[in-house]
Amino acid sequence: MTPDAQSPPVSSAEAEIRRLIAAQQQAIRAKDVDRIMALYAPDVVFYDVKPPFQTVGSAAFRRIWAECLPCFPDTFDVETRDLHVRVSGDLAFAHWLFRFTGPQTDHPALQQWLRITSVAERRAGRWQVVHEHVSVPFDPYSGKAVLTLDI
Amino acid sequence: MTPDAQSPPVSSAEAEIRRLIAAQQQAIRAKDVDRIMALYAPDVVFYDVKPPFQTVGSAAFRRIWAECLPCFPDTFDVETRDLHVRVSGDLAFAHWLFRFTGPQTDHPALQQWLRITSVAERRAGRWQVVHEHVSVPFDPYSGKAVLTLDI
Repeated sequence: MTPDAQSPPVSSAEAEIRRLIAAQQQAIRAKDVDRIMALYAPDVVFYDVKPPFQTVGSAAFRRIWAECLPCFPDTFDVETRDLHVRVSGDLAFAHWLFRFTGPQTDHPALQQWLRITSVAERRAGRWQVVHEHVSVPFDPYSGKAVLTLDI
Repeated sequence: MTPDAQSPPVSSAEAEIRRLIAAQQQAIRAKDVDRIMALYAPDVVFYDVKPPFQTVGSAAFRRIWAECLPCFPDTFDVETRDLHVRVSGDLAFAHWLFRFTGPQTDHPALQQWLRITSVAERRAGRWQVVHEHVSVPFDPYSGKAVLTLDI
């Protein structure tokens, strides 16, 4: 991922967070669980788009990734929109909208937009993701999830 | 809200964030839009449990609260679980699970647990919420939202 052409200059810490997000997306595209998990703190708390309500700790989180990655198509990319990053002290957060894209346009994993909030903490000089919240909104009248931005 | 009896001592900044969260919950219970909105930054970005995907800016966010509050019962409380708070520099984040409770147990607003991630920034010495992400997970097989913790 590269910042928008219109974006203001970023601090070195903010640039580190943008590299962390890019590294995460590259590791997901490579379906490499070890590379993905290397970015997370041992005590990460994860709110996933699907049940359960929360997942606590990197061992449980790793199992989610290991189950999830085979469900992705062989080749895909990540389209990102409206990325915001803020850093202060040893804490950083980012939020953005994203979807998976690829040549297999009818693949189930490529049918929806998602929202993500990600929080990283710098521990012993290294940024680690300590919390991630991924979701889609749901229509309270139908109880159904909303998967497109066109509303 | 008060911290758990088992919680470690908190920094003064962390105590400020816990007071901010408590103030928000009190303002919601009072159905006081002005008091609620006083806690948010003008450029807040909100990911709500219901559509749209995102709401940008306090004017649009205020309209959501103004529409939403009449849908709550006259009397209700907020039950909170698994609250985590971290502060560094001028940035703070918190996440927790919550539900609305009250005597009118069959009220639609009291039927679900929710997850929230909240990020605050200290600007000119005052903490303001700059991002909030509220959601429930959804079952990818049925497309339906999941509203209880019992899974």
